[in-house]
Amino acid sequence: MGQLARTPEPPYWAVVFSSTSSDDHDGYGETAQRMEELAAEQPGFLGFESASERDAGGIGIAVSYWDSEEAIAAWRRHAEHTIARETGRERWYDGYELRVARVERATSWRRHVTP
Amino acid sequence: MGQLARTPEPPYWAVVFSSTSSDDHDGYGETAQRMEELAAEQPGFLGFESASERDAGGIGIAVSYWDSEEAIAAWRRHAEHTIARETGRERWYDGYELRVARVERATSWRRHVTP
Repeated sequence: MGQLARTPEPPYWAVVFSSTSSDDHDGYGETAQRMEELAAEQPGFLGFESASERDAGGIGIAVSYWDSEEAIAAWRRHAEHTIARETGRERWYDGYELRVARVERATSWRRHVTP
Repeated sequence: MGQLARTPEPPYWAVVFSSTSSDDHDGYGETAQRMEELAAEQPGFLGFESASERDAGGIGIAVSYWDSEEAIAAWRRHAEHTIARETGRERWYDGYELRVARVERATSWRRHVTP
């Protein structure tokens, strides 16, 4: 179950990864979970959000937030992450769009529940 | 069913809207569909991607792409969009994070299927 990421005041960086899946889901869930945990341990990691419509034949969107471009580059070079990306292209994905963006403005809203 | 958005070479802009839903889904689907169609008619619109885990109690992520900050501001001021946002806060959302980001780099990948 996904959660909203609490991120600091902009500017910071976002990596938006949108993908469609192949018919081969074998091992995908475990690797996705592992990558989420591993990313959270990296320097400069700020947060992560993901939502997936895999079962409906739709797309998945995962967004990770970072304090700098250097942090993104270092995570990209991480050996286990590199292997996971290659396995994704070999097996799990039909296609993807990866976008690196600088967050300039952000608004946060939560419902106030009257007890 | 969602699709990946084909966007031009960066730079361009992304609006990342991550939300969690309340228990009230009444009319949400119709309005979300209408907003997606209406956004696509606006000047400067480049594309749209969304994925939702509503049924699993998780989050939804919708990303719209625009050619300028001015295009985002104009869409924000659109009367029907303004009403939809207000209804969302009154009824459909438990919380959200809205982030406006400048896309600096992008990578596109598609599987090559051998016939």
